[in-house]
Amino acid sequence: MTEQEWIEYLRRFLPQNKEILASAEEDCAVIKLQEKNYLLFTTDALVEGIHFKLDYYTFFDLGYKLSAVNLSDIAAMGGTPLYAVLTLGSNIALDKAWLDPLLEGINACLGNYSAKLVGGDTVKSPFFFLNLALVGVAERPVLRSTAKPGDEVFVSRPLGASSAFLRLIKEKPLEEIPEQARLAHLRPEPEVELGRELSQVAESMIDISDGLLLDLYRLCRPSNVGAIVEVEKIPVASCATLDDALAGGEDFALLFTVSKEKLRAIPKIEESLNRKLYKIGEIIPERKLFLKENGGLREIAPRGYDHFTSQLQP
Amino acid sequence: MTEQEWIEYLRRFLPQNKEILASAEEDCAVIKLQEKNYLLFTTDALVEGIHFKLDYYTFFDLGYKLSAVNLSDIAAMGGTPLYAVLTLGSNIALDKAWLDPLLEGINACLGNYSAKLVGGDTVKSPFFFLNLALVGVAERPVLRSTAKPGDEVFVSRPLGASSAFLRLIKEKPLEEIPEQARLAHLRPEPEVELGRELSQVAESMIDISDGLLLDLYRLCRPSNVGAIVEVEKIPVASCATLDDALAGGEDFALLFTVSKEKLRAIPKIEESLNRKLYKIGEIIPERKLFLKENGGLREIAPRGYDHFTSQLQP
Repeated sequence: MTEQEWIEYLRRFLPQNKEILASAEEDCAVIKLQEKNYLLFTTDALVEGIHFKLDYYTFFDLGYKLSAVNLSDIAAMGGTPLYAVLTLGSNIALDKAWLDPLLEGINACLGNYSAKLVGGDTVKSPFFFLNLALVGVAERPVLRSTAKPGDEVFVSRPLGASSAFLRLIKEKPLEEIPEQARLAHLRPEPEVELGRELSQVAESMIDISDGLLLDLYRLCRPSNVGAIVEVEKIPVASCATLDDALAGGEDFALLFTVSKEKLRAIPKIEESLNRKLYKIGEIIPERKLFLKENGGLREIAPRGYDHFTSQLQP
Repeated sequence: MTEQEWIEYLRRFLPQNKEILASAEEDCAVIKLQEKNYLLFTTDALVEGIHFKLDYYTFFDLGYKLSAVNLSDIAAMGGTPLYAVLTLGSNIALDKAWLDPLLEGINACLGNYSAKLVGGDTVKSPFFFLNLALVGVAERPVLRSTAKPGDEVFVSRPLGASSAFLRLIKEKPLEEIPEQARLAHLRPEPEVELGRELSQVAESMIDISDGLLLDLYRLCRPSNVGAIVEVEKIPVASCATLDDALAGGEDFALLFTVSKEKLRAIPKIEESLNRKLYKIGEIIPERKLFLKENGGLREIAPRGYDHFTSQLQP
């Protein structure tokens, strides 16, 4: 079962209820509490040997990243993160020497976005793993499944640096890897502030956790649309290749669509946050993905990192 | 680091904030949203080989129990469980043959208490584990740390059957184990309804997950009190020994204290829920645990199951 199949499978076990707006197929579960007040609920785990190796992650990095991947799910819905609880499964004795930096990393990243760790449980385990569950709220949650033909497609920042790190770490020691790639992989910044700004503007949104093309597919599929991406317009991180940007993983940039009527809001957001956003293509009615390059259109299959069928990339 | 040391350690990393009533040292994190409206947030994992073995758990049982242990944490605060998200770490291919009963078990137990699974994530893992995170609400959350000298100590039902199961499964096939012990261990019932009734009455409360004496200690310690337990009054399940009841684990009964002024409420609750509650002792100012037996008092050390220093009991 691929991740996509799992999502479709899981849906059968989730409540059919108009208060529960979204669940398996979205970045977070979304529950309507009242008008303009939605609860967001997400969870993500990092498992040693699958998602990280302790030979290049410090415990601080690991805690930071655990928070970041969960915060990114809230960011992708345009929400405000609030409270988190940790599960720590460990095969080694609990020791301040590694617990201190781990918890400091978790708190540092949560604290950057005013979220708080409120509890935690430890379990004995044959392997080392971490699970964080995070709740947040949103006034107007932005779903993946609401892209419309004619929407313009944007990404929030240059892509591929995190994937470049995984390529480079096989070839050279950590110290020789460009800082941009190191930080992108070990301490990714979730786009919480931008996500919240975009919640009033975007038609649909997702965070890029498994590569631009695969996550674009995950946005187009439930929206019953397709997209054309202009290769020349994809922002590629200076340490990365185009392939890193297209099919790498763990960028945690936002991928979002904006209707033509609301496009004027984008320069305002760019100005207020003092940053650039990158228009890379357009949503089309035909349910296919195309790359536009040198004036020609080429249909492509989504590629990327599927958590369940792959190991560490690339 | 023992579980108790972990709890004290973790507290340093949790916010010092009067809105956040409780966290590491309680069954759930408790966050005050407004007057008479508290958010409860808990998480618990089950790891293969540590918390369960698939030679005697069906996948339905496993899902049921995962929900039950989390619901029990909400019950112990007198709360109402609402929404859960699942993390599934698996080293085997996702297959309906085992996913169907697993998710049916999760939903069956949540559904008994009107709680809902709203989302889930899968991760590849070198071993099989499940993590559930659960949010709920409470009007008046009942803490562990608020027992007062003179309170009477109660347990909600006969103890030891779950622990008896673990003893018996080493000696005989599953079919020959009394149903009471099998159900107690594989499909424990969290005391959600009772917990909610007691929330208006109890001074302090905890669920018995690691044995009566250890959990009584966990209630007395943060309350700065001790207790005398009358051995003859401890309700022991018919399939269990006194030792199972005192030091076994995973009963998921409630252990609670009631002030003398509020004792009159107990017969009313017994009548309205058509069940008996068991008075087993009294809270004392001296910070020690005593067993009263044959008229004599004997000071005892808390025993029980510490998740981090022990394996499966007994």
